[in-house]
Amino acid sequence: MDFNDTIVALATPSGAGAISIIRVSGPQAILIVSPVFKPKGKKVLAEQPSHTLHLGNLVGGHRNLDEVLVSIFRAPKSYTGEETIEISCHGSPYIQQEILQLLIRKGCRAAEAGEFTLRAFLNGKMDLSQAEAVADLINSENAASHQMAMQQMRGGFSNEIQKLREELLNFASLIELELDFAEEDVEFANREQFQNLISKIQTVLKRLIDSFATGNVLKNGIPVAIVGEPNVGKSTLLNALLNEDRAIVSEIAGTTRDTIEDEISIGGVGFRFIDTAGIRETKDVVESIGIKKTFEKISQAQIVIFLLEAPSALRSSLPRRQAGPPKGEKLSEISIEIEKIRNRFPQKPILIIINKIDRLSEKELQNLKTDLNVSLSGVEGSHFLLLSAKTGAGVEELKNKLLEYVNVGALRNSDTIVTNSRHYAALLKALEEINKVEDGLNANLSGDLLAIDIRQALLHFGEITGEITNDDLLGNIFANFCIGK
Amino acid sequence: MDFNDTIVALATPSGAGAISIIRVSGPQAILIVSPVFKPKGKKVLAEQPSHTLHLGNLVGGHRNLDEVLVSIFRAPKSYTGEETIEISCHGSPYIQQEILQLLIRKGCRAAEAGEFTLRAFLNGKMDLSQAEAVADLINSENAASHQMAMQQMRGGFSNEIQKLREELLNFASLIELELDFAEEDVEFANREQFQNLISKIQTVLKRLIDSFATGNVLKNGIPVAIVGEPNVGKSTLLNALLNEDRAIVSEIAGTTRDTIEDEISIGGVGFRFIDTAGIRETKDVVESIGIKKTFEKISQAQIVIFLLEAPSALRSSLPRRQAGPPKGEKLSEISIEIEKIRNRFPQKPILIIINKIDRLSEKELQNLKTDLNVSLSGVEGSHFLLLSAKTGAGVEELKNKLLEYVNVGALRNSDTIVTNSRHYAALLKALEEINKVEDGLNANLSGDLLAIDIRQALLHFGEITGEITNDDLLGNIFANFCIGK
Repeated sequence: MDFNDTIVALATPSGAGAISIIRVSGPQAILIVSPVFKPKGKKVLAEQPSHTLHLGNLVGGHRNLDEVLVSIFRAPKSYTGEETIEISCHGSPYIQQEILQLLIRKGCRAAEAGEFTLRAFLNGKMDLSQAEAVADLINSENAASHQMAMQQMRGGFSNEIQKLREELLNFASLIELELDFAEEDVEFANREQFQNLISKIQTVLKRLIDSFATGNVLKNGIPVAIVGEPNVGKSTLLNALLNEDRAIVSEIAGTTRDTIEDEISIGGVGFRFIDTAGIRETKDVVESIGIKKTFEKISQAQIVIFLLEAPSALRSSLPRRQAGPPKGEKLSEISIEIEKIRNRFPQKPILIIINKIDRLSEKELQNLKTDLNVSLSGVEGSHFLLLSAKTGAGVEELKNKLLEYVNVGALRNSDTIVTNSRHYAALLKALEEINKVEDGLNANLSGDLLAIDIRQALLHFGEITGEITNDDLLGNIFANFCIGK
Repeated sequence: MDFNDTIVALATPSGAGAISIIRVSGPQAILIVSPVFKPKGKKVLAEQPSHTLHLGNLVGGHRNLDEVLVSIFRAPKSYTGEETIEISCHGSPYIQQEILQLLIRKGCRAAEAGEFTLRAFLNGKMDLSQAEAVADLINSENAASHQMAMQQMRGGFSNEIQKLREELLNFASLIELELDFAEEDVEFANREQFQNLISKIQTVLKRLIDSFATGNVLKNGIPVAIVGEPNVGKSTLLNALLNEDRAIVSEIAGTTRDTIEDEISIGGVGFRFIDTAGIRETKDVVESIGIKKTFEKISQAQIVIFLLEAPSALRSSLPRRQAGPPKGEKLSEISIEIEKIRNRFPQKPILIIINKIDRLSEKELQNLKTDLNVSLSGVEGSHFLLLSAKTGAGVEELKNKLLEYVNVGALRNSDTIVTNSRHYAALLKALEEINKVEDGLNANLSGDLLAIDIRQALLHFGEITGEITNDDLLGNIFANFCIGK
């Protein structure tokens, strides 16, 4: 595809830094930059070979804007497939703007969000699902989402879809060929082979569709609701989980903890910890609202953590704490609360964590374990875990437990995982059409009717890779990109 | 100078963007990156020529981290003068960290703030004042500070200092030579020529020292105190001034207005608008404190804007507004307030702005002008200006007026302007020593005594360009840099 205009944008995050990159792409890219770039020595930028770097000054009017490093990429050997220049300038917002304005005065147009990648797609440098993976890659915050985006960007997903599409297309052609010879009653398309292909496609589609639940959750972080009273050590626990990774990160990249909030990467998988107010029985109206909200949050979570602290959980097992409530009350209260959650959400894993075990003696710890086994034996699908967020004891066990709850097997085997809801929707529709084709085959439907459903299924396959697109769809997809990509 | 270690840092602003640059510099830079970089095709990165670009994958262990573009710079043809690799990766904070961690595992050290530029300085790629200009350039927010930083980075200032230093050094050598022949009473250094040189150096030093007032203020933005009651249209006025520039900026770079606060660039010069509470006479203690603060802010400002709104300023000239105070009172009150500022700060330009003139008829406007001329005739160095921030009438005139108050002549003539307080201090000390040398010459002091003062002056010259440094000084200077520069 040919574009007449040349686009320009800042490709690095805005704000001050050591270096900024300004990207120029389009038929005039080299011709627009060359006259305003004065290289060291007597060379002319427009005469330089592709994939070379040149130091010089960028001059606007009589003013020297900056000493810059210019990269030159000649079509089609560039990201967009077009003539491309990348200007590496000093990272001052003022300089960025001056250079952008200079290039716009010289004939560039300010690029829209994702327009470089849109051009790469339209120029055949990548298919649509690969282009979408570029945005996912930039937004990836942990190993899991990164790996899924990388796999998609490298075409793993597209290849799988593309292969099925070609086989299906082949059969569609044969069936349509039959239509031309309708009066002769021939069968070019072997119905048995076709039935096998349909089964194969159904299996693949179902696997991909099933992977979306995992993929979506891995991409956005696995929601974990924490149910617990104040002061049982929520933030200490999160800090303990955050611990190692974060220390390295802040040392290197200067990131601050605040920006991550309560999203924590464990074993390369993101977990989003959602604080709740607890669900203790109350007659207070305000507190009742709190409980309602807690249940809402639990319904959105994939895992529920029930956080308690050792001394109060212990009231049952420490007869000498005479000031506390009667023996056995506390733990039985808790098991009632847990039962409530279990009744509402029968499928949700519940992890009961007893924090602050560093405050207990060995004997108290043993007693607590026994009591917990007794009290919680009735609650299906719940597990308990004793730890000290302060000393770190048991934290590793908690991490392993959390990872157990997540289906990361697919990730480890580097199977294709669907993470994009647009792809998910297209796959569902494709499966629906394939099922119709199967029904048609079983009902011995005529070729012309089968062909209609096959074409529909092919359409949905094509939507994923971008063989079939429209401007609205492209507009929606690339509007979510950042400018400069 | 030789460094044994290889440093790595993120060179673009942290956060998500289309592209990030990771910079590696040091003797092992190419050797460390080459094994983890798998280029497209069969080439080996370490065998590629300087100033070339290579697309490929960065691989850590068995994991493919990212598709990246690698620039190679061979020593001494790089920013630092060392072997250098720049990795252009996808702008995900996760990917940035993974790559940084990989390179650190492979033997790089995380760079400290400004360490790349420090190495450039220590490797003789630039002198100290040029290195300092790099940081100024990155922080430049308007045309004036940008131009001053560019000039300094390109060596304008260093050259001037360097030339004087060499001439002085030459005389110092001759005078020291005389000492070796002390018993023969010869004069190698012509005292008259030396006197001329001293005069010349004094002139240059004085000019540079004088330029600091302008330079410092241009670099940091010219402080303008706005004295005015609430609702006279302060923010509308600032918006009107901000207007054009900002619109273009936010369209291109995605910057938000909030970040600039009240620093506004007018004709390429930054103005910092400082809001004050006003100085109306009062017996209230709290208000008195406010007045005291207003005077403090005025004392820091270089220009004072006295902002009024037309209808209330008009009370004197609109007899039909019967509800207001008696005719004439308001304007005379104001002139008393202005007199107070004038008395405290006799040198400060005071600009009286009457806003909201769009609410006046032509006749009212004429009356107001006449009244203002009468009321303010007694206040030295004050000017008044009628405008409407809402319609924009008179805003251009205000901009011109503000620029008039600033000595931008030097900037236009691209004279050397000193902007750095460290340089300013060194220049002051150098002048002091040069004055001592002059006194010594006039007093016919012996060569050995002259030589001491000359050496001292040379020392201060050397401090500016970095011929004479110590670790503390370098540490202080480069600590203000961002990481990755």
